Amino acid sequence: MLKLNSHPSGRHFLQIPGPSTVPDRILRAMDYPTIDHRGPEFQSLGIKVLASIRKIFKTDNPVVIYPSSGTGAWEAALVNTLSAGDHVLMYETGHFATLWKKLADKLALNAELISGDWRHGVDAAKIEERLKADTAHQIKAVCVVHNETSTGATSDIASVRAAIDRAGHPALLLVDTISGLGSADYRHDEWGVDVTISGSQKGLMLPPGLGFNAISKKALEASKQATLPKAYWGWEEILAMNEKGFWPYTPATNLLYGLSEACDMLLEEGLDQVFKRHQRHGEAARRAVRAWGFEVLCQNPAEYSPVLTAIVMPEDGKGGRHNADAFRKVVLENFNMSLGQGLGKVTGWVFRIGHLGDFNDLTLLGSLAGIEAGLIKAGVPHQRGGVQAAIDYLAETAGR
Amino acid sequence: MLKLNSHPSGRHFLQIPGPSTVPDRILRAMDYPTIDHRGPEFQSLGIKVLASIRKIFKTDNPVVIYPSSGTGAWEAALVNTLSAGDHVLMYETGHFATLWKKLADKLALNAELISGDWRHGVDAAKIEERLKADTAHQIKAVCVVHNETSTGATSDIASVRAAIDRAGHPALLLVDTISGLGSADYRHDEWGVDVTISGSQKGLMLPPGLGFNAISKKALEASKQATLPKAYWGWEEILAMNEKGFWPYTPATNLLYGLSEACDMLLEEGLDQVFKRHQRHGEAARRAVRAWGFEVLCQNPAEYSPVLTAIVMPEDGKGGRHNADAFRKVVLENFNMSLGQGLGKVTGWVFRIGHLGDFNDLTLLGSLAGIEAGLIKAGVPHQRGGVQAAIDYLAETAGR
Amino acid sequence: MLKLNSHPSGRHFLQIPGPSTVPDRILRAMDYPTIDHRGPEFQSLGIKVLASIRKIFKTDNPVVIYPSSGTGAWEAALVNTLSAGDHVLMYETGHFATLWKKLADKLALNAELISGDWRHGVDAAKIEERLKADTAHQIKAVCVVHNETSTGATSDIASVRAAIDRAGHPALLLVDTISGLGSADYRHDEWGVDVTISGSQKGLMLPPGLGFNAISKKALEASKQATLPKAYWGWEEILAMNEKGFWPYTPATNLLYGLSEACDMLLEEGLDQVFKRHQRHGEAARRAVRAWGFEVLCQNPAEYSPVLTAIVMPEDGKGGRHNADAFRKVVLENFNMSLGQGLGKVTGWVFRIGHLGDFNDLTLLGSLAGIEAGLIKAGVPHQRGGVQAAIDYLAETAGR
Amino acid sequence: MLKLNSHPSGRHFLQIPGPSTVPDRILRAMDYPTIDHRGPEFQSLGIKVLASIRKIFKTDNPVVIYPSSGTGAWEAALVNTLSAGDHVLMYETGHFATLWKKLADKLALNAELISGDWRHGVDAAKIEERLKADTAHQIKAVCVVHNETSTGATSDIASVRAAIDRAGHPALLLVDTISGLGSADYRHDEWGVDVTISGSQKGLMLPPGLGFNAISKKALEASKQATLPKAYWGWEEILAMNEKGFWPYTPATNLLYGLSEACDMLLEEGLDQVFKRHQRHGEAARRAVRAWGFEVLCQNPAEYSPVLTAIVMPEDGKGGRHNADAFRKVVLENFNMSLGQGLGKVTGWVFRIGHLGDFNDLTLLGSLAGIEAGLIKAGVPHQRGGVQAAIDYLAETAGR
Repeated sequence: MLKLNSHPSGRHFLQIPGPSTVPDRILRAMDYPTIDHRGPEFQSLGIKVLASIRKIFKTDNPVVIYPSSGTGAWEAALVNTLSAGDHVLMYETGHFATLWKKLADKLALNAELISGDWRHGVDAAKIEERLKADTAHQIKAVCVVHNETSTGATSDIASVRAAIDRAGHPALLLVDTISGLGSADYRHDEWGVDVTISGSQKGLMLPPGLGFNAISKKALEASKQATLPKAYWGWEEILAMNEKGFWPYTPATNLLYGLSEACDMLLEEGLDQVFKRHQRHGEAARRAVRAWGFEVLCQNPAEYSPVLTAIVMPEDGKGGRHNADAFRKVVLENFNMSLGQGLGKVTGWVFRIGHLGDFNDLTLLGSLAGIEAGLIKAGVPHQRGGVQAAIDYLAETAGR
Repeated sequence: MLKLNSHPSGRHFLQIPGPSTVPDRILRAMDYPTIDHRGPEFQSLGIKVLASIRKIFKTDNPVVIYPSSGTGAWEAALVNTLSAGDHVLMYETGHFATLWKKLADKLALNAELISGDWRHGVDAAKIEERLKADTAHQIKAVCVVHNETSTGATSDIASVRAAIDRAGHPALLLVDTISGLGSADYRHDEWGVDVTISGSQKGLMLPPGLGFNAISKKALEASKQATLPKAYWGWEEILAMNEKGFWPYTPATNLLYGLSEACDMLLEEGLDQVFKRHQRHGEAARRAVRAWGFEVLCQNPAEYSPVLTAIVMPEDGKGGRHNADAFRKVVLENFNMSLGQGLGKVTGWVFRIGHLGDFNDLTLLGSLAGIEAGLIKAGVPHQRGGVQAAIDYLAETAGR
Repeated sequence: MLKLNSHPSGRHFLQIPGPSTVPDRILRAMDYPTIDHRGPEFQSLGIKVLASIRKIFKTDNPVVIYPSSGTGAWEAALVNTLSAGDHVLMYETGHFATLWKKLADKLALNAELISGDWRHGVDAAKIEERLKADTAHQIKAVCVVHNETSTGATSDIASVRAAIDRAGHPALLLVDTISGLGSADYRHDEWGVDVTISGSQKGLMLPPGLGFNAISKKALEASKQATLPKAYWGWEEILAMNEKGFWPYTPATNLLYGLSEACDMLLEEGLDQVFKRHQRHGEAARRAVRAWGFEVLCQNPAEYSPVLTAIVMPEDGKGGRHNADAFRKVVLENFNMSLGQGLGKVTGWVFRIGHLGDFNDLTLLGSLAGIEAGLIKAGVPHQRGGVQAAIDYLAETAGR
Repeated sequence: MLKLNSHPSGRHFLQIPGPSTVPDRILRAMDYPTIDHRGPEFQSLGIKVLASIRKIFKTDNPVVIYPSSGTGAWEAALVNTLSAGDHVLMYETGHFATLWKKLADKLALNAELISGDWRHGVDAAKIEERLKADTAHQIKAVCVVHNETSTGATSDIASVRAAIDRAGHPALLLVDTISGLGSADYRHDEWGVDVTISGSQKGLMLPPGLGFNAISKKALEASKQATLPKAYWGWEEILAMNEKGFWPYTPATNLLYGLSEACDMLLEEGLDQVFKRHQRHGEAARRAVRAWGFEVLCQNPAEYSPVLTAIVMPEDGKGGRHNADAFRKVVLENFNMSLGQGLGKVTGWVFRIGHLGDFNDLTLLGSLAGIEAGLIKAGVPHQRGGVQAAIDYLAETAGR
């Protein structure tokens, strides 16, 4: 029997920005016996889940569900809509945008990355400018990350849509909201997104193992011309089978049980309330960060992520910063909490706290208290009172 | 489908002093299929569980396990050892001692209650004095509560044993450690206890449904003369069947799966470490209470319970105290945490926080933060900084 | 980690007549976190469960739920309604009726047992005769078993009621339907039963750990005069607390989750359909038994139990019968199925098959096939074709 | 709450040849909280699982685990080892071999299919002949299915290896044992397979959602030259991360918990015993089929699958055969069992019974009895005694 928690007592605080803590209700749903994926009971499940997930993406268009990670869903979006050598315009919001660019490179696409400082979301004006310059319409797709999990900055997707429109450019708009869906407001149809990519293990509160593509009519049209080789990821066959609630290959049955339950939970609470809840927790977390005298990595308040907060470690007086990973290790070993590491360019001097998944005011306060206790234990200089600031804010806004 | 959590997101903080939060590991163990309680696999379970539970009680004598609540185990201890009209000496440590006295009354025993102030444990000198006065040895049993769940005061059982011995009195010593077992140090054999009563839903971290009697040789002898009618609770038949790992009637199979796992968890961690962990959490809780400017109900530091802390609400300036139950309601509705109510004599002006079960530093800090936020939200005057005091103490003592 | 199934693959066939196989739906319900038994969410559960269970007993009167085995519920029925030395009339339908008599003896009641042959249900005429002879109305209660788990014979409770009425006798009617409830038709109110005793681990498909008393107005009146000592089992305090959905002591929370689910399942299917389903399985089992050339222990077809079938082992040609327990061991070790042993007077020459719990046509056919294979393996002479007879009957009656 | 079983009572018999019934032990393991896929506890899990799975494939070489279905693992094997336009030689053992060929076509490979009759495994002589004719070594890979799930015929992989060797041909050998692994003997290293493809939902007894590639040194070398675009499926990055127990993207954490448990179960029982158990069940199933007077689809006894049996429906006297799908519907609706449909060329006149997963003698006998009852109910002419034949065989071979 594998031991999954080396701490003798108490639940682990999984405060990375995903995988998020899975609610008991979802774990129990996933624990039901596996059924025949070609039978009538599965069919009811399939039809139900395919309808529910559209509501989460706010779309009337189809959403394809893969047995895959979010990375698979990235690949799916590209191979279905593009051909070898196609030019795609990407935007360096942080580590994940950069990884997506590398993935495009591997697929033999010609990916161009507008550089960014990892502390802001997308500047739509830069996209507009680039598209206007592309008079030959070489650029086939614009790819942006809605909620950059490495930095805690969101991007204004409506503004990107408007920029493309102002440029009068026919490029597809592909958006990654792997860590945003179900936590931050997202509107596939209203924002005119062509393919939205997401995954199960963040705001949907499921274990990892499902990837999603929400697909506009324009994207579907494009897929008929796209020539990158595709089989597993091919939309066509999946969409045909999905019509009747089935899949062309064996879907991840038990994760679909969980997805059904997750959609029910989010829709029962109401998406607006879900988003408000995340925003309130984000604000409480940031108040704690400021009270400690620390900096939030994201520099534009309008772009603060409601899903996670990336925190800059204080200077160490020797020209550098206190080490974020040493600090995280102290927290994990002493206080049974996992915090997110700094990734890519911010490795070592940034850590992240996820405020998503099965989470509430006291989980947040326990998490912030664990950070404050960890700062003391690790000898990281800080001002006291971070948790107090969060308590005050949550008390003041309770019930709202 | 029953909805068991009216809050849309996040785990409920069950911070009553029992039932305590059941660890996932135990819930999963209990989820195994029910088996034949007369078959060889059950027999292995029975033998294993009956051996393990002795280690938890620190006894080489038998421990009887009932499908019952702790109240049933109280009754079992009395009906097995006493006869109608027998005089028993009890001690008013708080609400549960009083309830046990009422139960003795219902069973037609002649129960005498040494009065107490609900803010201390047992004063062994009073027991000694009373026993010395009983030169005719009318008193057949001394009944005390080890960890009084209504007040958060423990009693020094070794001192009670010494008092009985000094009095040279043959009375049996019956001890309730329903909420102490598995959280506070307890030594059935070393302390010369004749019957120890406990239950599953506190330090053993199981759902309610099991009651225990640990039985000394002297108690077993006494049971052969005792004439109170007994069938379900009768030790004799159970002990005979237990020899081979079975029970005379159908035992609570799935709770026994959980008990097996609970004993494994406690013994893997080591009982000394388990007790140290609870003491540290108790101290952190009390530091928060004092920082808020509140009083701990228990007045003798040597008797502070490591299991729970009962807290006196502040004065309301109108000759009374702020209402504890109104406060608890605010906390439940706004912060998804259950706190223990004041019981009996302290109803309305005391609330209790349990620091037991599946619990760790961050659960405690989240709980204390929920109390502090609740005090703000409910408008209960207090000094700020309770959580901060707990953070400081836990950081300072982390890893010890 | 305890190994609960020594067989490497496949589900154990738990075909004893209880504990029965618990449906996944109930196991999952029981796996939810334990909650505050004094809080509002528990209250909703309590109110719901107390209402649902009345429908299962077919009563408008209260049903008390104990954390106990069925044996505890036997004791509860007696101590609430009777006084020391009271004369009670019992009926020897089999092993469990005999055990109940022994329990009454231990409680200092004066229990008289009308003898029976263990192959029939209650002969109401004998009860009528005995009551008529009791002109002084010394007999305070008539105690009968509805579904005798040791023999597979049911008793006609309505006829017992009629017998008491014809005798014009004021005795209470106490009925044990521990293994009948939820599987065989039972009508607490219509049949004029005063106390019905049941348990969780049979037709309610729960793990063991809950006992029940359904209580008529007359029984409630009687309880006010009854003087046997009672505390844990005392109806009065429980009924008072139950008014608001609570219990005087900690109830078995997680088993109540399961009970809520179990009642939902039975009521969703419809009790009439549930009973029909059990009858059909009983008939199929008996057809197999007859095809093997074996005898069903119960000799009156009108009294065949729909819950279990007790089977007489064939003669061994040496004046005895083939050993049932040796046979059961062969089945357990070779075919991973637990069968019920012969109890009391029929030990060694009778075995029992339970057809209750989470059970369907193929579970029954697999069980019967396991018996037939076991007969071959154990070298017990029999005619072939038992399973075939059951297949034929189930095919013929499928969908009815 | 989704209702996953429209039958009111009893477990569904999931007797399709995968997804197979998941043992409770595995479902419970998967029910543990999701953890940080970058933390030390996950790392231990990763290292353990990657070591265990090699033993199941009988290889000392690496095995890559994807969050995907088996179809994804097919794609992975091809895109890692081949370049656009590469010639691959496949063998039409049945429906799945044909689907794999279609997948190769979609990936722009030049796939040649040696035709087969869907009633036999691979004829290695035909492969040898074809390879010998390929003197220019245009053929880059030979792709065969080890256990053809659509027909119940296995192929002798060692003979294919020998054929390739005799032809002195450098082609890679790619083998699909999606439904064979963990049920039928398989030896990646000994048989000289270059890539073995498998999935989680068959002999590994997990829910669907994991795909596998076991990779020989030669395949790894080939992957460095192969130019088909690959990102998600790319071995290189995964193998590099796997070195330390991690994955480049978020792995399907909870399915990996299940995989850990599944490997433990198989290795505890011993693979040889596991294979023997499946063979015995296959033989019992075939004896039933023959007793009914039906034909097993697979015509070569040496190639009978131990995993499933495909059964040919009897002639209907009108030049056709009784409809297999109408029959399966009768069985599902009346007897709560899912049987596998005939796929591709054998649609409508073949059905399949899976004898894998969490399965034992009585599950098999219940399943066969459900088929026999279904034949009666559906009016499909047959000889009686199929179940009897299986009972006789299982009794005779019990304990072996």
